[in-house]
Amino acid sequence: MALIVQKYGGTSVGSVERIEKVAEKVKSFRDQGHDMVVVVSAMTGETNRLIDLAKQITPDPDKRELDQMVSTGEQVTIALLAMALQKRGCPAVSFTGFQVPVKTDSAHSKARILEIDDKRMRAELKAGKVVVVAGFQGIDAGQNITTLGRGGSDTTGVALAAALKADECQIYTDVDGVYTTDPRVEPRARRLDRITFEEMLEMASLGSKVLQIRSVEFAGKYKVPLRVLHSFQDGPGTLITLDEDNMEAPLISGIAFTRDEAKFTLRGVQDKPGIASLILGPVGEANVEVDMIVQNTGTDGTTDFTFTVARGEFQKAQRVLEKVQKDVGARELIADDHIAKVSLVGVGMRSHAGVASRMFKALAAENINIQMISTSEIKISVVIDEKYLELAVRALHAAFELDKK
Amino acid sequence: MALIVQKYGGTSVGSVERIEKVAEKVKSFRDQGHDMVVVVSAMTGETNRLIDLAKQITPDPDKRELDQMVSTGEQVTIALLAMALQKRGCPAVSFTGFQVPVKTDSAHSKARILEIDDKRMRAELKAGKVVVVAGFQGIDAGQNITTLGRGGSDTTGVALAAALKADECQIYTDVDGVYTTDPRVEPRARRLDRITFEEMLEMASLGSKVLQIRSVEFAGKYKVPLRVLHSFQDGPGTLITLDEDNMEAPLISGIAFTRDEAKFTLRGVQDKPGIASLILGPVGEANVEVDMIVQNTGTDGTTDFTFTVARGEFQKAQRVLEKVQKDVGARELIADDHIAKVSLVGVGMRSHAGVASRMFKALAAENINIQMISTSEIKISVVIDEKYLELAVRALHAAFELDKK
Repeated sequence: MALIVQKYGGTSVGSVERIEKVAEKVKSFRDQGHDMVVVVSAMTGETNRLIDLAKQITPDPDKRELDQMVSTGEQVTIALLAMALQKRGCPAVSFTGFQVPVKTDSAHSKARILEIDDKRMRAELKAGKVVVVAGFQGIDAGQNITTLGRGGSDTTGVALAAALKADECQIYTDVDGVYTTDPRVEPRARRLDRITFEEMLEMASLGSKVLQIRSVEFAGKYKVPLRVLHSFQDGPGTLITLDEDNMEAPLISGIAFTRDEAKFTLRGVQDKPGIASLILGPVGEANVEVDMIVQNTGTDGTTDFTFTVARGEFQKAQRVLEKVQKDVGARELIADDHIAKVSLVGVGMRSHAGVASRMFKALAAENINIQMISTSEIKISVVIDEKYLELAVRALHAAFELDKK
Repeated sequence: MALIVQKYGGTSVGSVERIEKVAEKVKSFRDQGHDMVVVVSAMTGETNRLIDLAKQITPDPDKRELDQMVSTGEQVTIALLAMALQKRGCPAVSFTGFQVPVKTDSAHSKARILEIDDKRMRAELKAGKVVVVAGFQGIDAGQNITTLGRGGSDTTGVALAAALKADECQIYTDVDGVYTTDPRVEPRARRLDRITFEEMLEMASLGSKVLQIRSVEFAGKYKVPLRVLHSFQDGPGTLITLDEDNMEAPLISGIAFTRDEAKFTLRGVQDKPGIASLILGPVGEANVEVDMIVQNTGTDGTTDFTFTVARGEFQKAQRVLEKVQKDVGARELIADDHIAKVSLVGVGMRSHAGVASRMFKALAAENINIQMISTSEIKISVVIDEKYLELAVRALHAAFELDKK
């Protein structure tokens, strides 16, 4: 007898047949006596179809009007799912963002949720209905329809769960849980039963596409237990939960990696206060975001300054830095867009020393040179040559015995 | 410097190219200094596409959920039209039914407009914007999306014009106005510059598909001058207006006709009080609507009782009447589904005698037998054999010189 919020993405509701399957699944939970709130996305392809229509008129459509239009994608799905539930003798009612209402700010196409009124949902739950809610959308103070940005349906699910103080928010997707690392790189990767919000955030920010970062932040902030499950396969999935619930945390939960970065090094920069801002100031002004930064202590009054940026901004950053090189009188600019970042993530490393040395040893055993290192409380990241990425992931997976429970 | 409400139907906004053309037309009015409110339907085929999706799930979808879904059709069009206007440097904003708001009762799929709040529209007009409104939809007191029924966009246009006290409500369609009769039957049919609300109502109820009956009733009730025009051809169209504006009304404005009826005669029915309800009671109970009714005074204590029903209900009515025949002891039941109804419509006949005799004479001259006659203040209808329909229309068109101004 729990209150469960479930969220199904676009592929899970991509056809009438799939919507029927989702209805079956929702009904099976309802039949067990649970109160059910279900968040759905637009059917796969529908959002793109609508955006294409707009782009046929203008390459840069007004964001308010675009939100007005693309929000219809979810509006169709909620009605279809409600019908499919009703057909199965399961009372249901659908709500758009404004009907809940999900109140947001006015930042069209990337609005933030301000408040969710749970009165109407509670009344319908009390009346025995499944409540089906359109993901990804809300309403601002001026009654304009807003969208939370693509993929925002996860955030809707978590926000509704927080507002309703739901027992669990279940995110249904095309994978059956969160893995120790990407199974396409390491076939021995293992599904995790549990992972903490912090770890999931690190995994997500490092390219694990299972969940939207914002929804994980939201769930962590409001302490909403989050579970990732496969839409059409049975299984327990992965529960994302608070650290405290997970006292016997393993040392390392997973290995995340990304190829999406590029590296710059300015060699022979004068080692004096303010030099970092002289270098990174122009980079920031060009709207290039910097990820890792390393500056070694110099020996001869000069130092080497290294940092990474998103690979898509490699050329833009290079142009800026060629000018910076002259301005700061650096001896050399080294640009490298063939790097990869590999990270060990685990709340367990907080209380255990030796994780870093074990990591470096495992990489050294494979002759993989470490170009940069950066650490946080629950993560150690290294930058290596891109060609060693798969090798590094597999070596670390084995070294930390992630294939074993 | 007028306030004009324009309504464009589904074919007028059936593609991005057509939406661009509508934007051009709206902008040309705006450039003349008019305040513009534009009502649009869903793109042709979109409403049917959505209904088909629902029917794939269930043949009898819940009406609230169906409204939730089909209302998205207009929501897409309003956003596209607003974008197309903005692209032309014409400020514009789109509103769904709930954003106006257009308040309706809760009769999903055939809701009636209760009240329209004009504050937000007025504010946007004052700010120099074209206001684009979704036709066919509204919102009930419980914030549920309602639809006015198919074709209800005309009604939205008229209702907005009434609420805003607009100078004119222009309905753009695929014909260039209201004709004296159907040009496919009588090529000499002539476009009318003006017609009264009453006449238009009679024409519409007799099958002239130019305007929805409800929108004409609404316009008449609120005295909104209504103009029918062609979406993509220039021309003055037909102005539908009050009787008083039209003192020099011609005798006859037009000839309407319908093949959509069938006729039953019960012969030799006892001529006594209550016989009509004995016959029509069971028909009404079977949900068959009766149109014309004629009962002749009997000579031998019996009478003949004749009436017409919609042709689609011919067989259902026949089954009911076979039983009725026995119950009332009628001598014979004659059923005929090969009839047509032809009607002369004109407010001018109020003050002119002799219209009926001229009509009957014209039909007699062509040897067309009149089976039933029914008259109202501004209309004379006759039922004839279906095979004479075209001949009758042309004969009457000529007899009343409708091809001449």
